[in-house]
Amino acid sequence: TKRYTITLLPGDGIGPEVISVAKDVLIVAGSQEGIEFRFQEMPVGGAALDLTGVPLPDETLSMAKQSDAILLGAIGGYFQFSIFNFHFQLMYKWDNNEKHLKPETGLLQLRAGLGVFANLRPASVFPQLVDSSTLKKEVAEGVDLIVVRELTGGIYFGKPRGFTTNEKGEEIGFNTEVYATYEIDRIARVAFETARKRRGKLCSVDKANVLEASMLWRKRVTTMASEYPDIELSHMYVDNAAMQLIRNPKQFDTIVTNNIFGDILSDEASMITGSIGMLPSASLGETGPGLFEPIHGSAPDIAGQIEVYCVPCDAYLDKANPLATVLSVVMLLKYGLREENAAKRIENAVMDTLTRGFRTGDIYSTGKVHTVVQSVI
Amino acid sequence: TKRYTITLLPGDGIGPEVISVAKDVLIVAGSQEGIEFRFQEMPVGGAALDLTGVPLPDETLSMAKQSDAILLGAIGGYFQFSIFNFHFQLMYKWDNNEKHLKPETGLLQLRAGLGVFANLRPASVFPQLVDSSTLKKEVAEGVDLIVVRELTGGIYFGKPRGFTTNEKGEEIGFNTEVYATYEIDRIARVAFETARKRRGKLCSVDKANVLEASMLWRKRVTTMASEYPDIELSHMYVDNAAMQLIRNPKQFDTIVTNNIFGDILSDEASMITGSIGMLPSASLGETGPGLFEPIHGSAPDIAGQIEVYCVPCDAYLDKANPLATVLSVVMLLKYGLREENAAKRIENAVMDTLTRGFRTGDIYSTGKVHTVVQSVI
Ligand SMILES: CC(C)[C@H](C(=O)O)[C@@H](O)C(=O)O
Ligand SMILES: CC(C)[C@H](C(=O)O)[C@@H](O)C(=O)O
Repeated sequence: TKRYTITLLPGDGIGPEVISVAKDVLIVAGSQEGIEFRFQEMPVGGAALDLTGVPLPDETLSMAKQSDAILLGAIGGYFQFSIFNFHFQLMYKWDNNEKHLKPETGLLQLRAGLGVFANLRPASVFPQLVDSSTLKKEVAEGVDLIVVRELTGGIYFGKPRGFTTNEKGEEIGFNTEVYATYEIDRIARVAFETARKRRGKLCSVDKANVLEASMLWRKRVTTMASEYPDIELSHMYVDNAAMQLIRNPKQFDTIVTNNIFGDILSDEASMITGSIGMLPSASLGETGPGLFEPIHGSAPDIAGQIEVYCVPCDAYLDKANPLATVLSVVMLLKYGLREENAAKRIENAVMDTLTRGFRTGDIYSTGKVHTVVQSVI
Repeated sequence: TKRYTITLLPGDGIGPEVISVAKDVLIVAGSQEGIEFRFQEMPVGGAALDLTGVPLPDETLSMAKQSDAILLGAIGGYFQFSIFNFHFQLMYKWDNNEKHLKPETGLLQLRAGLGVFANLRPASVFPQLVDSSTLKKEVAEGVDLIVVRELTGGIYFGKPRGFTTNEKGEEIGFNTEVYATYEIDRIARVAFETARKRRGKLCSVDKANVLEASMLWRKRVTTMASEYPDIELSHMYVDNAAMQLIRNPKQFDTIVTNNIFGDILSDEASMITGSIGMLPSASLGETGPGLFEPIHGSAPDIAGQIEVYCVPCDAYLDKANPLATVLSVVMLLKYGLREENAAKRIENAVMDTLTRGFRTGDIYSTGKVHTVVQSVI
């Protein structure tokens, strides 16, 4: 038997409950493929703040680094998940904390600490769920794109940053958007390679008509294209990309962009699929373990809520949709551990679950998912 | 008779043809309201580059400053307009120019030179055109929001910026996102006042969980809210806003945000309406003339193309939809000159034109618009 150590970082809100489902699924699929998983659960985000006073304790980072892959639930108190129970953003527990004591800072420190510069965010429309998109069926149907987002650079980490006063004595807040050639080159390479494994089309998104950081980005991506003559490269301004994702998302295969544009566009793209509770992500570095997490938030408004008793599965079912995390496990097995067979098993089980009509509230309102996934593996 | 001087800046691509329609419309409406317009046409963007070697000649800026209002067509060679004839972004004439010789730089210099810090971008779904949205009818129907975008600050203008090498000797490109309190306060005030004239809801969009510039933004907007107890203020992170615009755009009334987020979100919002060739914008400063322009680009691929001979209006009709520019004239009359009656006339004429079924290719494929607007005023 093969053995892997997985760091589980449940985090906040619905994090613990979706992680617990994903863990069970991982155990079942592993046992069928002769793989044994050892789990180490560590605190991060708001949970870590409450426990230790910091959003990323040193032990969490060092244990994570020593493991084979990291599975994260959700971080923070803000809410960007539930589709049918939307409330305008509320103030949650840690919202007024200073920057270094915000749950989100723990996530940023984790990404930087692990060096996971490449964030892969697939946004595919599941045929079974095409009706849950707010886009017309003929526009949403068949969308299958991936956003390759730079994750450890740009304005998220650029220095100088902070607060000061200007010549007039007024307070200013400032940040630096900055990219060095090596940072652009390594993310561009991941993107070209990703496009090669897909439909061979890469669209690089920037704001090169205004920003110097984008001009360098465009120049380096264009230069690298000569190494990938089989890839059809195009460039698009970020404002246009935000439009084109709605106008005709099917035009996109692989999108590569910087940290902040990737944050915005990948969330936009995920909403297009109507499956925000269904979308996984992988964050990879040059070496070391990858970080795998659902793209949805911590949804504190539905955390811990049981929706209904499910007779066929003999269990009380959560409101939260665990499938984004279960599909993050698929990415973990594929990209992190190269365990394609176990990955395929779980992927098939998810498709089966959907085809059988099980749904959570975010994607539809009849039937449930939860433990069902395990029983169909 | 009242007299106003209007600076016309046709610019590039379809700019000249849409400006010429808008000018005719302005003359007709003015004559019926006892207003006389004097027009001065000046070069800007690529047109100015070809003519004078710079994208914003001094004379253009000084003449513009001395006039009562400025109407701009479109600038640059890139393409973000045509809905049914989409090609991936092509390389156009000035694309490889250095930054200070790009057409877009002329536009940025114009905005800065005029001090028009407040960019108002309404995105409403015209009932007659609801079907041209890629969003489902029930989602798009009734959307009526406005993005108040900060236009002369932030990462577009922040210093330091440029190219240099880092400690490792590698090239870096960098920009500065920066806001001072006075910049935030003045745009926030415009936004609160705008919301007050509408449905009283203001959503401020930022990335305050990561960026210091956003933290200051949120703090100042929150402080100002106490002066506007009648306005319902909410805050939203930009990634969430990009999702919510697709999930349920009707939740928004007035959105206020910084320059770069406003660039992205206003384009996204405009595409939601399906009426990208229909949407105007106004850019206003504290004093001096306002700048009014359609939000679409210069669409060089359809510039100067005649679609068909229109029997009822006895004219050859352009492919380009002039209505975004005509509606920019409405904003010019309303916000720039406070000539509500003339504004109302043109607004009604546009609605009439749509109701009668005239369309250009971007919004539908039967019937045409063009000079028809004049004949129905
Ligand atoms: C929580 C936040 C810091 C984070 C980001 O902006 O990267 C989130 O939005 C994401 O996309 O993973
Ligand atoms: C042409 C470009 C510089 C401009 C901008 O980014 O402001 C345009 O996209 C706009 O929104 O008016």
